[in-house]
Amino acid sequence: MYKEIRLSGTGGQGLILAGIILAEAAGVYDGYDVIQTQSYGPEARGGASRAEVIIADDVIDFPKVTSPDVVLIMSQQACDRYGQHVKPGGIVLVDDTNVSSIPSLEDACVVTLPITEIARHDVGRQVVANVVALGALVGVTGIVTPDAMEKAISSRVPRGTEELNMKAFNIGLERGREARAKHETP
Amino acid sequence: MYKEIRLSGTGGQGLILAGIILAEAAGVYDGYDVIQTQSYGPEARGGASRAEVIIADDVIDFPKVTSPDVVLIMSQQACDRYGQHVKPGGIVLVDDTNVSSIPSLEDACVVTLPITEIARHDVGRQVVANVVALGALVGVTGIVTPDAMEKAISSRVPRGTEELNMKAFNIGLERGREARAKHETP
Repeated sequence: MYKEIRLSGTGGQGLILAGIILAEAAGVYDGYDVIQTQSYGPEARGGASRAEVIIADDVIDFPKVTSPDVVLIMSQQACDRYGQHVKPGGIVLVDDTNVSSIPSLEDACVVTLPITEIARHDVGRQVVANVVALGALVGVTGIVTPDAMEKAISSRVPRGTEELNMKAFNIGLERGREARAKHETP
Repeated sequence: MYKEIRLSGTGGQGLILAGIILAEAAGVYDGYDVIQTQSYGPEARGGASRAEVIIADDVIDFPKVTSPDVVLIMSQQACDRYGQHVKPGGIVLVDDTNVSSIPSLEDACVVTLPITEIARHDVGRQVVANVVALGALVGVTGIVTPDAMEKAISSRVPRGTEELNMKAFNIGLERGREARAKHETP
């Protein structure tokens, strides 16, 4: 296994925390070798946010995402910048609450879910959209085990919000699995 | 400017958050290009924790710390593993609350401060030892501006703890500056 994952959106959506949770799930609880990276530059100062995770069976030599297998997109700006950059056969998960112009890709699978809307209405708090996104990511890709993800979420979210975040994760997971099933049986 | 910084200790000391705060201070508020990395592998599963930050004037091509300019060490295990790995002329900042056997280095400057003890007694909460460490790091090295660090701390620590963390940062900063002055005038 060697998978590159990019999480992209705007500042304040909690994507850096999401990257850390995904990395801990894979590295500490699922036992993979993992590198997790944030870059800050002109982009970050313009409000964009990006976290990247590499998950591998073996030691990772070059810790840079070059051609992601999985891309999460949570803003139109992120979509315009990263929407076309995915490995052939890869998966792009788009939060269509925030993205109206969605790329159509020939070689990759684009899955849309109203992630922020799900956080707001089904979970009851927009602030957990990042954890709904992690649930959807696991539901669609199976890249880490739900069990590892639940442990990582519990250890990283602010004390007192564990239950809310677990609900967010599980609703996202369910919606992600449904979306995948639809793609498999069109 | 091209500086590599390694923050090392054990899980639960908040070093990943410290790495993110340092990276945001340098990247978002001081305007450098910054890459911040966490690695998870056998080490992390054994309780060790490590965050790395590269701060540069220009775009960073290879996002991997090879020979750090600055190393923070907050546990004996981290000291045994990383205490010798520093660039000639570099700085090793050791929390001697947790480290008893401290390396003596020929080509680098070793600064010891009882970081965890300062958090416990001078600030009043051991949990902010990571932010005391950031203050000390800035006081000793001047690697980012105190102003940028205060902004990054405010934006990243849990809501309601801003004041406590600002106190931790400023006490650490003061103690770091004192320690540097002592080194400069022996």
